[in-house]
Amino acid sequence: MATVEVIAKDNTGTTNGKSYSVIGRRVLRPDGVDKVTGRAQYGADVKLPGLLYGKVLRSPHAHARIRAIDTSAAEQLPGVKAIITGKDLPLAEDKVAKSGEGSVNYSYLRQNVLAQDKVLYHGHPVAAVAAVDIHTAEEALALIKVEYEPLPPVLDVLEAMRDDAPILLPGLRTRELGEVVGDKPTNIASHEQFARGDVAAGFAQAAVIVEREFRTNTVHQGYIEPHNATALWNADDHITVWTSTQGAWDQRRDLSALLQVPISRVRVIPMEIGGGFGGKFALYLEPLAALLSRKAGHRPVKMWMQRDEELKATGPTSASVIRVKAGARADGVITAVQVWMAYEAGAFPGSPVSAGMGVIFAPYRLENLLIDGYDVLVNKPPAQPYRAPGGTNAAFAGESVIDELAERLGMDPIAFRRINAAKEGDRRADGPVYGRIGYIETLDAIAAHPHYNAPLPAPSAPYIKVGRGVASGFWFNWDGKSSASATVNPDGTVAYLEGSVDIGGTRASLAMMLAETLGIPYEDVKPMVGDTQTLGFNDGTGGSRTTYGSGIVAYHLGQAIIQELKKRAAALWQVSAEAIQVEGDRYICGDRQIAFKELAEKLDETGGPLSVSVSLDTKGAIPGFGTHVVDVAVDTETGKVTILRYTAAQDVGRAIHPSYVEGQIQGGVAQGIGWALSEEYVYDDEGHLLNASLLDYRMPTALDLPMIEPVIVEVPNPNHPFGVKGVGEVPIVPPAAAIANAIYQAIGVRITTLPMKPAVILKALGRI
Amino acid sequence: MATVEVIAKDNTGTTNGKSYSVIGRRVLRPDGVDKVTGRAQYGADVKLPGLLYGKVLRSPHAHARIRAIDTSAAEQLPGVKAIITGKDLPLAEDKVAKSGEGSVNYSYLRQNVLAQDKVLYHGHPVAAVAAVDIHTAEEALALIKVEYEPLPPVLDVLEAMRDDAPILLPGLRTRELGEVVGDKPTNIASHEQFARGDVAAGFAQAAVIVEREFRTNTVHQGYIEPHNATALWNADDHITVWTSTQGAWDQRRDLSALLQVPISRVRVIPMEIGGGFGGKFALYLEPLAALLSRKAGHRPVKMWMQRDEELKATGPTSASVIRVKAGARADGVITAVQVWMAYEAGAFPGSPVSAGMGVIFAPYRLENLLIDGYDVLVNKPPAQPYRAPGGTNAAFAGESVIDELAERLGMDPIAFRRINAAKEGDRRADGPVYGRIGYIETLDAIAAHPHYNAPLPAPSAPYIKVGRGVASGFWFNWDGKSSASATVNPDGTVAYLEGSVDIGGTRASLAMMLAETLGIPYEDVKPMVGDTQTLGFNDGTGGSRTTYGSGIVAYHLGQAIIQELKKRAAALWQVSAEAIQVEGDRYICGDRQIAFKELAEKLDETGGPLSVSVSLDTKGAIPGFGTHVVDVAVDTETGKVTILRYTAAQDVGRAIHPSYVEGQIQGGVAQGIGWALSEEYVYDDEGHLLNASLLDYRMPTALDLPMIEPVIVEVPNPNHPFGVKGVGEVPIVPPAAAIANAIYQAIGVRITTLPMKPAVILKALGRI
Repeated sequence: MATVEVIAKDNTGTTNGKSYSVIGRRVLRPDGVDKVTGRAQYGADVKLPGLLYGKVLRSPHAHARIRAIDTSAAEQLPGVKAIITGKDLPLAEDKVAKSGEGSVNYSYLRQNVLAQDKVLYHGHPVAAVAAVDIHTAEEALALIKVEYEPLPPVLDVLEAMRDDAPILLPGLRTRELGEVVGDKPTNIASHEQFARGDVAAGFAQAAVIVEREFRTNTVHQGYIEPHNATALWNADDHITVWTSTQGAWDQRRDLSALLQVPISRVRVIPMEIGGGFGGKFALYLEPLAALLSRKAGHRPVKMWMQRDEELKATGPTSASVIRVKAGARADGVITAVQVWMAYEAGAFPGSPVSAGMGVIFAPYRLENLLIDGYDVLVNKPPAQPYRAPGGTNAAFAGESVIDELAERLGMDPIAFRRINAAKEGDRRADGPVYGRIGYIETLDAIAAHPHYNAPLPAPSAPYIKVGRGVASGFWFNWDGKSSASATVNPDGTVAYLEGSVDIGGTRASLAMMLAETLGIPYEDVKPMVGDTQTLGFNDGTGGSRTTYGSGIVAYHLGQAIIQELKKRAAALWQVSAEAIQVEGDRYICGDRQIAFKELAEKLDETGGPLSVSVSLDTKGAIPGFGTHVVDVAVDTETGKVTILRYTAAQDVGRAIHPSYVEGQIQGGVAQGIGWALSEEYVYDDEGHLLNASLLDYRMPTALDLPMIEPVIVEVPNPNHPFGVKGVGEVPIVPPAAAIANAIYQAIGVRITTLPMKPAVILKALGRI
Repeated sequence: MATVEVIAKDNTGTTNGKSYSVIGRRVLRPDGVDKVTGRAQYGADVKLPGLLYGKVLRSPHAHARIRAIDTSAAEQLPGVKAIITGKDLPLAEDKVAKSGEGSVNYSYLRQNVLAQDKVLYHGHPVAAVAAVDIHTAEEALALIKVEYEPLPPVLDVLEAMRDDAPILLPGLRTRELGEVVGDKPTNIASHEQFARGDVAAGFAQAAVIVEREFRTNTVHQGYIEPHNATALWNADDHITVWTSTQGAWDQRRDLSALLQVPISRVRVIPMEIGGGFGGKFALYLEPLAALLSRKAGHRPVKMWMQRDEELKATGPTSASVIRVKAGARADGVITAVQVWMAYEAGAFPGSPVSAGMGVIFAPYRLENLLIDGYDVLVNKPPAQPYRAPGGTNAAFAGESVIDELAERLGMDPIAFRRINAAKEGDRRADGPVYGRIGYIETLDAIAAHPHYNAPLPAPSAPYIKVGRGVASGFWFNWDGKSSASATVNPDGTVAYLEGSVDIGGTRASLAMMLAETLGIPYEDVKPMVGDTQTLGFNDGTGGSRTTYGSGIVAYHLGQAIIQELKKRAAALWQVSAEAIQVEGDRYICGDRQIAFKELAEKLDETGGPLSVSVSLDTKGAIPGFGTHVVDVAVDTETGKVTILRYTAAQDVGRAIHPSYVEGQIQGGVAQGIGWALSEEYVYDDEGHLLNASLLDYRMPTALDLPMIEPVIVEVPNPNHPFGVKGVGEVPIVPPAAAIANAIYQAIGVRITTLPMKPAVILKALGRI
């Protein structure tokens, strides 16, 4: 990684002038060997005596009434042990649970995991089978007869908002600014609004006004490991689920509600996870596997999805239409913004439109704003969080308009942003006042970066046009609840049980913070991920909360150990615990001192074993900001856009493990490039998904991407013992806009739809 | 169980007048359904990707030098992945670790798990193979050529003590009262002595003196589930072991020492256990599986024993020779006892002779005593703890002599014991002063019991003789170290992670104590057994410590939760935590109150999740005593002894779960009857074990046993929050003596060897 410039430069453990022993180093991950040797246990590795295999029968229609399901032939097939349909799900209360950043409506969840009277999208589960092997289960699916009455589907958010649109949920009424209004069937689940100042007066002050409409397409989280679940509904009505999830405790709560079994009878064991990006919070297979297990006489049932099932019926995130009007004075100060945004929720309410409303102009200090957001049903799978949910759509629109304002005023895009940049004390569109954010610092980092100051690369042919674009991004960041426990071993190492599934190096970063707190080597902390039975509550691994929230718990866990070790040293020397000072790993009283390791050896003689646990509702997350610059080459003959160079600066508060921070930034940008250039769901008019494979749904590969250069900016979060801010979500927010702005510089046309695929470029150039 | 009389009589939760909500009830065990439906995961259920199967090559000789081992032919066998011999074990330091009640010598352990230059018993492991399946592994064993130089074996403790005996360990020197003396090769590992008063003066005061020699045979723990272990030595040199063990943390320490890998790199996961009785503390297969895993390229290796391997090379407990001289005044007061006892250690030092020395006259107040004990090597497998290790041998001798003294003085055996019975404040032979023991209460319970007051059953035929015998027993009981953690779920249940392997209902009894502390229903506590990575240190499940020590931790865990919930209630009402009173499950402040369950629902709004952990070095165990009465019928034609009726009273302090207490008493008596009447190792002159199967090694079956009636006596232990004393070990101590005393009453001959099998009886009757 010779080209990577980071402020936390190397393995010295010094970041931003603050000296640490462990934090800031690029240590090996504890789970590394397991993962490269194939020993790590994923859901696919779960094997249990008497295991059955389950498969899901899915709707071939995007919208249809289910008249009848006949499972009798399938039941007769030798080897079939259980078949379930929608009626096997207990009747859920119409209850909503808060779930971290979002909420879960159990009535909708129930209808989604197994269709009740209607199917609402191509791939909607209709029935599930458990059999002695997967082939028998597949064969049984073909024997289930479902009688459908097809209904006209609606696949576009604007069409779905029309009065004459086909209605997905006849009972749905719009929630208008939080209140249910009217009694007209509708696909508009909600309308929210952020308002401040007087936008008309603001626009009246503007020297330039830009007004545009943007469209983004449906995209999928694209994690490598498909959804899977193995469940055992035991004869004593205790349920154990082994699954790939970002939130074991959330799943426990939702399974409990959905299956109407007390929380304490559900144990969710999170296996290793092959990516989630927000798409592995929701339940899909877990309740089906559990119900099949019960029906099959309490035998365990294992299920997993094929990629086409993933694309048809999990994820994706919302397509959207966003209309922006923004004005600025000649001196560059933005006077007003007005936004109308409609996000596709898919089959049930729940798009991330409100997050999009918060993201769209978050980097800027705004006196006059009016943002309206609509959550709209269409016949697609229900939208799930996808890395900075709703943010990429919003920033594509907002940052394109910002770029255009700067251009129209003849200002450098970074200079224009700096004039308007939000800082500590400014108020966000959605209400809260910013704490110690580092947005301006990311603008400074890009302005000073060699990339931004280098001339554009020369085009390689006359029909190749090059351009440079800039965009900024924001994410709220989340803190949430975490629990962990730890034990000091007699050899001076620490066994550390934490509850955040390890997606991006969590074991390493949390162990580093615990080691730093204790003043002991990183290698002496042995982290392990617990489950809902072995550990207290943990919010999911998502929302960019893990290193922040579980990191605070790691720190307090270390402090609890230190307090206990002070007592042990005090017992050793017959003094009071208050007389003990701690420096690094040394416990000191006058001229006596003893190291952590030696003290650990003396646990037995100073009171016995030492274990601690900490549960906290952490507070104090501070939003993250990033600024990206990208150079593109546009082939005006083919419409292909090539990324030539990409640099992404981000305020991360403090980089605990710089490599993982860089990996998050690079990964987010890579996914953002997918949104920008190639990823989209292609439906036919009847709502059939036509590209449900990774050959046809085009995620970027390594060959599509240049080296993405992360620039770590550290403006420490004063609310975190080590200054951490969330990292993972910001980097996916700016890429689509940055690339659109670069394409504009290259070809002089503003592209307003995603993906900016060759056909779109050629059309913009008037070539087709 | 209509015939069972207990002081904790029924399901009312009232024991000895103290009222509890949960304690004293006969609740269902949480693991019950899993165990009866076959879902419980034992070592045999462990399945891992790429699993190899291991087998052990064992010595056909009882004593031989290993000249050479040629594994070349076996290595060539297709499917063989690794072969290890003694040289593959790292060279152990000559180090001794304290292990709960005993200690582990790593040099001996190393020589036992794989023979080095000599084999010391029939079945001693010589090599081990890992292969793709068990059949290939077995085939490979047959291809390993071992060149032995046979040596004369010694199989009897008295012969082994002779100067001219074959020597097992040429470097061994006797430890005489703790100090190594002399430089003569010997099989006598140690000589210990307890002395008090003046025995010569004591005997001079005696009206009667009894002097006898007793012999007991080698017997096995006889757990149903054989030893098994699956190990993965990972490429990062972290080792995971899944095994059937009574002490996961002990095994971790011993594996760490034996394999010379830091403790923190060893994770021991205790699976469900199908019995242990002391025989599942020692390492056998675990280090072999680990070494084979490493050598086979870090693939997991699974091993398990056949029953013949169990009998040849695990357990057993010591055969012994015990000489007793005891005298009493005419008024029944014992004036002096003198004991000489030699216990077989098997191939390496470590018989429980010192425990036997402590047990033999523990129920009695003695002013003059002299007890000598010898630990002696013989060519048998190294002795392992077996339920009240060394106690049954000792009480067989001691209580036979007590019975004879009473008879010679013409006194009722219970009256004689009551005259001499130890009580609080008396000093044990091994030094400590008794706390609030309940020995006399067990004598009272038997004296008052209908069994003791009923006439002897009439013989069913003239050649059948009937008799009644009484004997008492003692066990030290252990406290030790325990850790546990718990989480309050939002539905008001508690997830409870404890570290004591569940042998005799531990999950239930510990969950009961936690529920009692919290004032919530038993069913609301969900216990689970942790492992060395998920929980702080726990001493093993043994020594009758679990309900005591881990129970104290359960209580403190509950107290920690209560303290935290007081804060939550205080937060709810905006008062100080000190203002909150707790009654049962209610948190009260003035006229406001809230129940545990409701408070649990409000955790999120009062500070977030709640989890606690507690580690303690518990103290304050108090010894247990039992008094048994048995009626036997002796068939003087065949020599067969039939148990007609058996009643066992025991002071248990407090019966947390009366059914499990009764089960412990019944199980201990059943095993004691096996010692008494049928169990023994039969060796030929060359030291080959001739009865290495459960057909030929004769454990009692249900058909051999009457209903055993337990009588629970409760003299609460003031050092335990609920009064618990250890239960499991006392009941195996009296049976052999009680039965011998009953046989004497029936046939007028004192039997002084175990087992008292038909041939012994016929010989005593002069019939053969």
